[in-house]
Amino acid sequence: MSRPEAKFCRDCGTAMERRIPPMEDRERAVCPACGFIDYVNPINVVGTVPIWQGDQVLLCLRNIEPRKNFWTLPAGFLEAGEGSAEGARRETCEEAGARIELGQLYSVFDVPHAQQVHMYWLATLLDTDFDPGPETIECRMFALDDIPWDDLSFRTVARTLWHFVVDHRAGAFGTHYGEVTWGETLPPLPER
Amino acid sequence: MSRPEAKFCRDCGTAMERRIPPMEDRERAVCPACGFIDYVNPINVVGTVPIWQGDQVLLCLRNIEPRKNFWTLPAGFLEAGEGSAEGARRETCEEAGARIELGQLYSVFDVPHAQQVHMYWLATLLDTDFDPGPETIECRMFALDDIPWDDLSFRTVARTLWHFVVDHRAGAFGTHYGEVTWGETLPPLPER
Repeated sequence: MSRPEAKFCRDCGTAMERRIPPMEDRERAVCPACGFIDYVNPINVVGTVPIWQGDQVLLCLRNIEPRKNFWTLPAGFLEAGEGSAEGARRETCEEAGARIELGQLYSVFDVPHAQQVHMYWLATLLDTDFDPGPETIECRMFALDDIPWDDLSFRTVARTLWHFVVDHRAGAFGTHYGEVTWGETLPPLPER
Repeated sequence: MSRPEAKFCRDCGTAMERRIPPMEDRERAVCPACGFIDYVNPINVVGTVPIWQGDQVLLCLRNIEPRKNFWTLPAGFLEAGEGSAEGARRETCEEAGARIELGQLYSVFDVPHAQQVHMYWLATLLDTDFDPGPETIECRMFALDDIPWDDLSFRTVARTLWHFVVDHRAGAFGTHYGEVTWGETLPPLPER
């Protein structure tokens, strides 16, 4: 998803040039005709950890690339004009057709190499009538001991679920922040 | 800061058209020549709550619009390729020239009408030698009882400081999430 710089101005269609804008410290793509500056900023991915009866989590088998056929938490890109929690709820509905009660903000993970920030909310499933959308092959509930760690879609999903299992054992749920790096491996879960 | 849709394609310069892309549910600006879709997503603003000796907070008097001459926490737009905490540290350095030790993620506020998400980290000031950058008129330390509530720059700054004062009284600091709406007013601080 990391985005190349603009070649043409979105406002007037003129070919962009690279220069350092006034009062700034780095080169940007700038329009020589109208002055538009193409700032490139990370995009937010928002989703939920949908929990059933306290100890089962809903995962979705991805029907789209990247990571088709891997298990994921329902999540997607935050839209303009939308709140993050609202976006997390929308994505849970779109990808799983699940009815949830939203809980606390649970994890915030930077993914600098993908120019993304991922945010997950805890959510309580209100029933188990799912209705997978076109981006999902199948919805399935997993007991916390049966999470398919080797077949998860993304590092942010794995780390969020890892924290959830650890917090579930401890009986206390905080808000977790971290930065995801290429090729990282999860620490082992603590001994029971 | 809310951004109008692209009139021209950033990749090939062709005039964009409005249509609903395949597998989507809403109109986007789409390039009829190369197929580029102009997704518009919220942008992240990252900053810190710089604390001195546990009960004084560093604020910066803004030297730029919007809200020039109002007091703000050091913060700015997250850059591509940068982690959120790293961006919060960079902005604190650029706007205040302050040396800090970063603490926990403290507040996450959606500002849907501005297409922004604001995130603040707690930070401990290592000394009081500030060096305001060009975006700052003056840096000043405020005791928690003297925060200039009527002269703060943005709602997210006010709400973050409000939580800090409440948490400071209670002696426990969580991570706060919320959505900021136009024209909202802060609840009064609780009685001591």
